[in-house]
Amino acid sequence: MNANLLRSAFHVAAVSGMYLATAMLVPALVDLYYRDPHWKVFAVSAFLTGGLSLLTATATRGTPPVFSKRFGFILVNVLWVVFSVAGALPIYFSSLGITLGQAIFESVSAVTTTGSTAISGLDHMPRGLLMWRSLLHWLGGIGIVALGLFVLPFLRVGGMSFLKMESSDNNSDRPFARLATFTRAFIAIYVGITIACAVAFDFAGMTRFDAINHAMGVVSTGGFSTHDASFGYFGDNWAILWIATVFMIIGSLPFSLMILFAVRRRLQTLHDPQIVVFFGYVCTFSILVAIYHHFKNGISFEAALTHAFFNFTSIFSTSGYASQDYSQWGPFVVMAAFVATFMGGCSGSTAGGIKAYRFVILFKMIHVGLKRLVYPDAVYSLRYGRVAIDPDAQKTVLIFFATFTLIWAIGAMGMGALGYDLVTSVSASATMIANVGMGLGPIIGPAGNFSTMNEPAYYLLSMLMLLGRLEVLSVLVLFLPTFWRG
Amino acid sequence: MNANLLRSAFHVAAVSGMYLATAMLVPALVDLYYRDPHWKVFAVSAFLTGGLSLLTATATRGTPPVFSKRFGFILVNVLWVVFSVAGALPIYFSSLGITLGQAIFESVSAVTTTGSTAISGLDHMPRGLLMWRSLLHWLGGIGIVALGLFVLPFLRVGGMSFLKMESSDNNSDRPFARLATFTRAFIAIYVGITIACAVAFDFAGMTRFDAINHAMGVVSTGGFSTHDASFGYFGDNWAILWIATVFMIIGSLPFSLMILFAVRRRLQTLHDPQIVVFFGYVCTFSILVAIYHHFKNGISFEAALTHAFFNFTSIFSTSGYASQDYSQWGPFVVMAAFVATFMGGCSGSTAGGIKAYRFVILFKMIHVGLKRLVYPDAVYSLRYGRVAIDPDAQKTVLIFFATFTLIWAIGAMGMGALGYDLVTSVSASATMIANVGMGLGPIIGPAGNFSTMNEPAYYLLSMLMLLGRLEVLSVLVLFLPTFWRG
Repeated sequence: MNANLLRSAFHVAAVSGMYLATAMLVPALVDLYYRDPHWKVFAVSAFLTGGLSLLTATATRGTPPVFSKRFGFILVNVLWVVFSVAGALPIYFSSLGITLGQAIFESVSAVTTTGSTAISGLDHMPRGLLMWRSLLHWLGGIGIVALGLFVLPFLRVGGMSFLKMESSDNNSDRPFARLATFTRAFIAIYVGITIACAVAFDFAGMTRFDAINHAMGVVSTGGFSTHDASFGYFGDNWAILWIATVFMIIGSLPFSLMILFAVRRRLQTLHDPQIVVFFGYVCTFSILVAIYHHFKNGISFEAALTHAFFNFTSIFSTSGYASQDYSQWGPFVVMAAFVATFMGGCSGSTAGGIKAYRFVILFKMIHVGLKRLVYPDAVYSLRYGRVAIDPDAQKTVLIFFATFTLIWAIGAMGMGALGYDLVTSVSASATMIANVGMGLGPIIGPAGNFSTMNEPAYYLLSMLMLLGRLEVLSVLVLFLPTFWRG
Repeated sequence: MNANLLRSAFHVAAVSGMYLATAMLVPALVDLYYRDPHWKVFAVSAFLTGGLSLLTATATRGTPPVFSKRFGFILVNVLWVVFSVAGALPIYFSSLGITLGQAIFESVSAVTTTGSTAISGLDHMPRGLLMWRSLLHWLGGIGIVALGLFVLPFLRVGGMSFLKMESSDNNSDRPFARLATFTRAFIAIYVGITIACAVAFDFAGMTRFDAINHAMGVVSTGGFSTHDASFGYFGDNWAILWIATVFMIIGSLPFSLMILFAVRRRLQTLHDPQIVVFFGYVCTFSILVAIYHHFKNGISFEAALTHAFFNFTSIFSTSGYASQDYSQWGPFVVMAAFVATFMGGCSGSTAGGIKAYRFVILFKMIHVGLKRLVYPDAVYSLRYGRVAIDPDAQKTVLIFFATFTLIWAIGAMGMGALGYDLVTSVSASATMIANVGMGLGPIIGPAGNFSTMNEPAYYLLSMLMLLGRLEVLSVLVLFLPTFWRG
């Protein structure tokens, strides 16, 4: 039974691996276009990945199992691990003198749309490799939206959006019936937004190569740049910063709503409480930081507002781009950035973190919990928008929150054991598990990157990124002995 | 109705205030004994407190209300605030040149048994004032045990111990019947342990004055010392460190068990899962830190083990004494100390923090929650020892955990807004809400103290200490509009 599930999971992964091999031809073509001999690395990687995938796909053929929760959990984990390893191949094979840990870290960072980089000297790197990083986190974005919309809600780990889609369609008996329509609509929207973003960047003054790469990073809320200075490279081009801000916000909104709007032309579905909460905290933090920055450092309010919105949208959307080293703006900004790192975007988007819909439910639960302390016999129902949240789903939100916090603490202690100071340890663990990308402190802060970590740290951080991306619980279930006995 | 509850709460507080006024005569006598004219400060404070208490008690006379949950919450908050203010009087009136914020902070720190000090130059201070600080957190210890054993379980905010006492006595129909017996037994045990600790310190080489003061600080897991260097003053007197370690552990154990043993001579009640978990993490952290310290810094294993056990027991028991600046031992120790700050002792003890019994329930809930993700139809019951925990109590544990974490984050952001760096902010907020006493970093780390904070920070930190001591939820309920309408 277990063997059958694993076989099928690897079969799906192998078939997807063939697509990934094909995707490797894109950076190969880019290198060829720029007459860079580095294209061979991608050709070899594509051949290897494609060949291995074909072999595995053939070896694992068989009747697919009934789609059960257990298969769902196994599939999700296998897919993300296989993509991480395959994605690391061209990076490891490149002539950058990168360690295995760095290559894995870079690939996991891409696949999970974290966007932390273990590579410095981006400005002088083969363009194919830059394109590969961008493409990989852009594909990771598709993966995570599909996961959040179609798989996680079924596994009941997270994702209110699909639930909402169902309920607002009044047609919840056949959840997978319209999957194909939705998927096509989603891909069209995702590609469309990316193109729109790239065109906007192009108009605002980026080179075409930069525009395409950054558009892929912004829409996937990934955060890989083609420059070591990230968006700081574009200096005071505020148009670029505001375009990026808008598209990072779009990438953090539930794609389900955009899909429903595209498929059904319904606008009332926009009444999703998490959107209000998400906008609420993005604006509150950005405006408070802008006011603080303006008064404390004597920066013009327009400039302060522009950079505050860009950098805090970048954190909340879990993108991880920086336009300036905001950790130098003052202690309040440092603390705000640290806390913001945990919070995240909306469910059913490319953003990570704890996510706005969980905060909606969390605050309602705390409110109801307090009321029940005083009036234990009163009955309170808990609603998310128009949907009642059953006690089990409520508990899952709290358990997620507690587990997320505990894994963060364990990760931070692990970083301490590997020799890192408190600021680096707590912010690295947070930025990895929330898939943000930037930490704090001199090493991994907005002015730094992850290129000087020690080798074991790369593996620890990679694990944290995967745990966070798969919403923690989807990974931890695999460690239950009963999971494999069932 | 509300007026009646408030009146009664202030009546109880005023009557208790008269006891506190009497207690102020103890430091007055100490000063008189040492021929220090400072005794007048205590005489004046006692007169003021006693007079005001008498007036208030007279003005608020009347029939006591039925003991309801609402009255319980109001009473608990009023009591701790009144004691904090009254306790601050002799400190503020002293000739130390202290601000109001510092005096309030010092008193709140005492009453909540946190043990952070806003005063430096302890070694040359009037002895009466040292005795007052010690006495105040010793009395705070009595208050918090009474709260944890008799009040919080009734309010269902926390405290499994009384519940267990009841259930193991098979006599849960009249919960308050044997209160007097239990209270007498508790006071006798508390005084007895304190005397035993003082005698042990005396034998191990402390002066009698130091022995009495530190015994009060150790048993109440408070943490005020009579020396700026805390236990570092006693240098390498390991006997003193181990005595303190043992008594800090005793102060972190559920007093309910000791009471039951004293009253009923039953030993089987010692099967409380939180005790195992508490010993588990104290030993695990201490031994790991000792091994790390031994190998990294070339310290003899005996010395490393002694100091590791002392300092980590001090953190876990939320005492806040330090024998060395362990933040210099290495990054792993810093991270371990940071994480340990949140964890705390057992319920029904003088210790604060999240507490061991909540971790027991939390881990079981995560385990069951993960199993339910895979097998949603299976039925799992959750037991704490032999007691089944109903879903409501489970949820309260999770809500407590989430609220505790959120208040910590808000407190840390507040510290950032007041100008403190990340390490100081996150560790100050944690050490306050967990009532530990020591932070991290150059200002409030084990080698520092809270004497140089800015004035608003003292008020913020005082609020965090009170929130933590009253288990967060008991304070937050007062902010519900429905609380006052009921």
